[in-house]
Amino acid sequence: MLRFLTAGESHGPCLLAIIEGLPAGLPLNVEAIDRELWRRQQGYGRSHRMKIEQDRVEVLSGVIRGVTTGAPVALRIENRDWANWKEKWEQNLLEPLTVPRPGHADYAGMVKYRLLDARPILERASARETAARVAIGAIAKQLLAQFGITIGSYVCQIGSVVANIPPHSYPELWKAAEASEVRCPSPEDSERMKNAIDEARRARDTLGGIFEVQALNVPIGLGSHVHWDRRLDARIAAAIMSIQAIKGIEIGPAFENAGLPGTQVHDDLYLSENQTVIRTTNRAGGIEGGMSNGNPIVVRAAMKPIATTGTPHQSVDIVNLHAATPIYQRSDICAVPAASVIGEAMLAWVLAEALVEKLGGDSLEEMRR
Amino acid sequence: MLRFLTAGESHGPCLLAIIEGLPAGLPLNVEAIDRELWRRQQGYGRSHRMKIEQDRVEVLSGVIRGVTTGAPVALRIENRDWANWKEKWEQNLLEPLTVPRPGHADYAGMVKYRLLDARPILERASARETAARVAIGAIAKQLLAQFGITIGSYVCQIGSVVANIPPHSYPELWKAAEASEVRCPSPEDSERMKNAIDEARRARDTLGGIFEVQALNVPIGLGSHVHWDRRLDARIAAAIMSIQAIKGIEIGPAFENAGLPGTQVHDDLYLSENQTVIRTTNRAGGIEGGMSNGNPIVVRAAMKPIATTGTPHQSVDIVNLHAATPIYQRSDICAVPAASVIGEAMLAWVLAEALVEKLGGDSLEEMRR
Amino acid sequence: MLRFLTAGESHGPCLLAIIEGLPAGLPLNVEAIDRELWRRQQGYGRSHRMKIEQDRVEVLSGVIRGVTTGAPVALRIENRDWANWKEKWEQNLLEPLTVPRPGHADYAGMVKYRLLDARPILERASARETAARVAIGAIAKQLLAQFGITIGSYVCQIGSVVANIPPHSYPELWKAAEASEVRCPSPEDSERMKNAIDEARRARDTLGGIFEVQALNVPIGLGSHVHWDRRLDARIAAAIMSIQAIKGIEIGPAFENAGLPGTQVHDDLYLSENQTVIRTTNRAGGIEGGMSNGNPIVVRAAMKPIATTGTPHQSVDIVNLHAATPIYQRSDICAVPAASVIGEAMLAWVLAEALVEKLGGDSLEEMRR
Amino acid sequence: MLRFLTAGESHGPCLLAIIEGLPAGLPLNVEAIDRELWRRQQGYGRSHRMKIEQDRVEVLSGVIRGVTTGAPVALRIENRDWANWKEKWEQNLLEPLTVPRPGHADYAGMVKYRLLDARPILERASARETAARVAIGAIAKQLLAQFGITIGSYVCQIGSVVANIPPHSYPELWKAAEASEVRCPSPEDSERMKNAIDEARRARDTLGGIFEVQALNVPIGLGSHVHWDRRLDARIAAAIMSIQAIKGIEIGPAFENAGLPGTQVHDDLYLSENQTVIRTTNRAGGIEGGMSNGNPIVVRAAMKPIATTGTPHQSVDIVNLHAATPIYQRSDICAVPAASVIGEAMLAWVLAEALVEKLGGDSLEEMRR
Repeated sequence: MLRFLTAGESHGPCLLAIIEGLPAGLPLNVEAIDRELWRRQQGYGRSHRMKIEQDRVEVLSGVIRGVTTGAPVALRIENRDWANWKEKWEQNLLEPLTVPRPGHADYAGMVKYRLLDARPILERASARETAARVAIGAIAKQLLAQFGITIGSYVCQIGSVVANIPPHSYPELWKAAEASEVRCPSPEDSERMKNAIDEARRARDTLGGIFEVQALNVPIGLGSHVHWDRRLDARIAAAIMSIQAIKGIEIGPAFENAGLPGTQVHDDLYLSENQTVIRTTNRAGGIEGGMSNGNPIVVRAAMKPIATTGTPHQSVDIVNLHAATPIYQRSDICAVPAASVIGEAMLAWVLAEALVEKLGGDSLEEMRR
Repeated sequence: MLRFLTAGESHGPCLLAIIEGLPAGLPLNVEAIDRELWRRQQGYGRSHRMKIEQDRVEVLSGVIRGVTTGAPVALRIENRDWANWKEKWEQNLLEPLTVPRPGHADYAGMVKYRLLDARPILERASARETAARVAIGAIAKQLLAQFGITIGSYVCQIGSVVANIPPHSYPELWKAAEASEVRCPSPEDSERMKNAIDEARRARDTLGGIFEVQALNVPIGLGSHVHWDRRLDARIAAAIMSIQAIKGIEIGPAFENAGLPGTQVHDDLYLSENQTVIRTTNRAGGIEGGMSNGNPIVVRAAMKPIATTGTPHQSVDIVNLHAATPIYQRSDICAVPAASVIGEAMLAWVLAEALVEKLGGDSLEEMRR
Repeated sequence: MLRFLTAGESHGPCLLAIIEGLPAGLPLNVEAIDRELWRRQQGYGRSHRMKIEQDRVEVLSGVIRGVTTGAPVALRIENRDWANWKEKWEQNLLEPLTVPRPGHADYAGMVKYRLLDARPILERASARETAARVAIGAIAKQLLAQFGITIGSYVCQIGSVVANIPPHSYPELWKAAEASEVRCPSPEDSERMKNAIDEARRARDTLGGIFEVQALNVPIGLGSHVHWDRRLDARIAAAIMSIQAIKGIEIGPAFENAGLPGTQVHDDLYLSENQTVIRTTNRAGGIEGGMSNGNPIVVRAAMKPIATTGTPHQSVDIVNLHAATPIYQRSDICAVPAASVIGEAMLAWVLAEALVEKLGGDSLEEMRR
Repeated sequence: MLRFLTAGESHGPCLLAIIEGLPAGLPLNVEAIDRELWRRQQGYGRSHRMKIEQDRVEVLSGVIRGVTTGAPVALRIENRDWANWKEKWEQNLLEPLTVPRPGHADYAGMVKYRLLDARPILERASARETAARVAIGAIAKQLLAQFGITIGSYVCQIGSVVANIPPHSYPELWKAAEASEVRCPSPEDSERMKNAIDEARRARDTLGGIFEVQALNVPIGLGSHVHWDRRLDARIAAAIMSIQAIKGIEIGPAFENAGLPGTQVHDDLYLSENQTVIRTTNRAGGIEGGMSNGNPIVVRAAMKPIATTGTPHQSVDIVNLHAATPIYQRSDICAVPAASVIGEAMLAWVLAEALVEKLGGDSLEEMRR
């Protein structure tokens, strides 16, 4: 059984992750992890900080001579910003944040943890934490790749700009997305999205959007219909929804399917010329009955606009109970491209988990038997 | 820590559930459980079977003198249809189903479990199983009610008919939904929905739709931002997505929010006249940073059309590898109203879990301390 | 991942269990489950009740045409005593038990669950619950048997009578134990044990003892050294210690080994004539580094004497705070033979869990690939 | 719900731990963690390495201004030996260990993980890993201390030397144990134990032994009788058995109790002068029905002798299949005193887990309500 924990604050010394349950014998490509970390940091409309933090992973355990041993794999990503914060923390130069920012974890977190300072909340609630998850997902991807499974993503919408996705194969779309500053496979729509981001910046506002993640070559039968918490779609939904600012998810075009008659929605089965069972449509998004059905798994996620807007929101000082506006910390205008990379990581994780459950997980060799 | 398992086939003797971790001292209202089971069985466009199965729960353990003891609570719901099936099973009169039905678990399940008969798959994949979950959810609701938390739902869309939800309070909308054969709080839209269902029946087709579930008076701080798998929205997403035929979920109007600028999305905080922190909007759907924020929790779910359509889908006989059409078993035309009741149950479960985690769970008395 | 929940009170209508995660394709022998239930009910020195309850299992789900389907398997064991208790419960004829019995869960349970009546506690704390676990274990045994793994047990000590275990193979010892009324493979010691039990009865006292459970042909590498909670010995320790009245456990002769030098304890490895690695000793009890090492797994457990003694213990009435003696309910004099059968069930469970983790668990066929 | 993962190899750069689920508001004393790490490193009969590794913990997350925030707490303990090993690993100077050492994880681990080198196994199987657990346990102790719960331990037996524990209070015995090089509260027996260790060293042999851990002031009702895996004794058994080289465990004098009649074993209840319920004996070791009963929790553990003996064991070269003796790496002669400190840590962990389950765990303030 695969499991992981992450730790670390946004302005603390580092992010950490421990992954437990990886099979032995998996060659680990550290550069490929760093490449994923780099992908997470890209995207038109990111803040200055993305340039400070050129993330690099250190693998601190579980790998000997470049290959996993079956022992827990610990990952560390330094917060390069830490140098600027260390003194502030240690000399206690940081005033409490007593005005929670709407759209953030601040208010609920302060009440839950009985704090009169939002700082401990935002330090952990920050999406900086997802760097650890992307590193974990990069390892999951390497495990999946051993079984031919590949994962990619692109951005479908930023603000009100809805992309017209060209009718290409997923690998082609992924390649086009990599070439786009907003991870959108349509060059024209990429420009429109960048303009929308520029406009939002000028308006001291922020944007959200929609991205789509796909997994190809997934074996039939990951997940299970037999119990609610083993359904692959349920587990994917939790994993994607757990990404900061993601508030909606669908497997395939689910909200559109909801308005169509059954005859137009369900994917018929056919025999291919070489007598295998195939489908020519994938409105189910690759999952039926809570199980992968052999088609590409297609997950769409709705991200709310960045909560920190240049135009201030109304709030309340929790200590003195007066109306107040939160302190503005420079922030991204739009993080949908980054979120799509994080989405890939979380989907990779869920599939790796399900694969290990199906095949057993002592060693890569035994999984392949 | 609350947990449950369910068991039972659609045409087996019964459905069973065991709930472990309920606090002692909760008075259990069995009629209220039956009332929820009844609600699940309603809805315009249901099949004949709903009349056969007038579900009643038996509480087999964990309750003494009408009050929970802290021991596991076992629930049994008889399958009244069993009388008609017992002989067929026992005398082996049921031919294997070798043609998987598109949109169902059949194909993926047969491959996963290495079966040449879809029957064992569909017996468990059937939404009949949700009767057990509704009973479990009814108990969760009774626990939540002890803390003033209430849950309700209504249908927003059936097929292409999108309801115009009147600007009433949630309790009023719930009441109106109870009076509607399609659980839609707008009487005119209810009629339109029924017409759409009638039309689909005539066209030998089926319909899906969208429902919304709300929880009121949820304390601030259920769930947590500190780790991905503790986020309340992630857990709700999994629970709702785990309902048969649900393929999309959003917390609040998430897909709409994705297209709006941040200044129009995030819910400002204000001081009320009596100096408490309030909001006047709820676009976040009651959750920020993975925690309940004191606003109503609002969950919307997209249901695909019923997969069994009168107009046959194309498929393949898995045994002899010929194109074939699946056997048609009479089925519902639309089950969105029932799904909204199941959605209430699953939301109730997740909130009960989170409440017990927050307050500890040995006894109701201690939870309330 | 295998998991189970049980439910049911000692004097309620039934015991129930749901097992989730069994592979599909396992032929289920129901008579063999009943045989295990029967074994649990044997033993010299048991009370009258054992004759009332001739346990039979009903398999209510998860099995079609005699074979598991991958769906949850629900088991029901009727409490035949229920007929005698139903009226008492329903007409509220049972007075609260306000004097907790030393050695039982009564006092701690009343405080934990804030009850002024021990009855709800003892109803669930009773070892009657283990009938459900024995049924579960019987299924685990059937799964293990598919991989050649067998499990048996015998009694080593009752009260102060320590058996002299003859130097026979485990299967021979198991056979001898089945023929003994106290499950002791030495006929002479069996007689001494029965005499001790008779004597204890006359003295209005009770006896505990020690039993040993063994598993043969366990593949190397179940469990893992890589994380504390995956160690096979840790998991076995929990499973055996969870049996009512078990207070001590050792893997192999651990307490004796603790007093010996290392050169006399560790089991050397040798090459057999056909070039396989073998051992000629098994002081490790079949586990090294938290993993099965290919030798028989040998678990010894210490059971305290039955807590309900004819000679009354001193206690306190919790309601009126006076010294008092608990009501005496007729009880067993010694239950060590039954406990050894329960020990087999729990060991079988842990090994089945670990086997499914190692091999994956969708179907028996895939596990065997 | 509290949980943790550890990572790290014996000769890698560091050990790491992430603890998730700690309540907010707990002041963390880092020096007290280091003090526990120091205690783990003491003990007559330890190897040279204990002097190299003067362990210090770094707290990398989850604590702001000295107080927990509710976020995961990450701990790092440097392996000072790393400097000596880094080059060897990186330049691949370490030859594979192909001869598994009897009594270690080597053989089972190589088979499980399909390795022809024992090194990756022993790196993780080494008891060096317990430094991480001791740090975790030190934090658990600090949480427990907020509720008045204290934990200590002493050594009862080393090799064949059984200590005569003086009839003092536990705090007095703990104090005496701290003053002893073998953690034995009897000065005369401490000397005999040291002599036994010296003798074993001369004989190129090793010793095991027995230690006892106690927890005082534990509230009544941690754990539960209602389900097997919630029993406090089962969870303690797993936690203690998971310590390297521990093979036996008992709650109270369980193996002795197994030979006594019930009237001499169970702890009567009495009224104290101030009308509270008390006991004058504690043969149950503080647990009845799987729950803490208000008495001290007393856990005894049997440790096997150190597996690496100067006198070589017989083994087999797994690669060339010849009889061989393993390479001898200098090792401890006896580690029972250290194991007793680790036992404290694991007991503290289980009690902290159970306390958070009982009281809820968002903040210390809320736990105390």
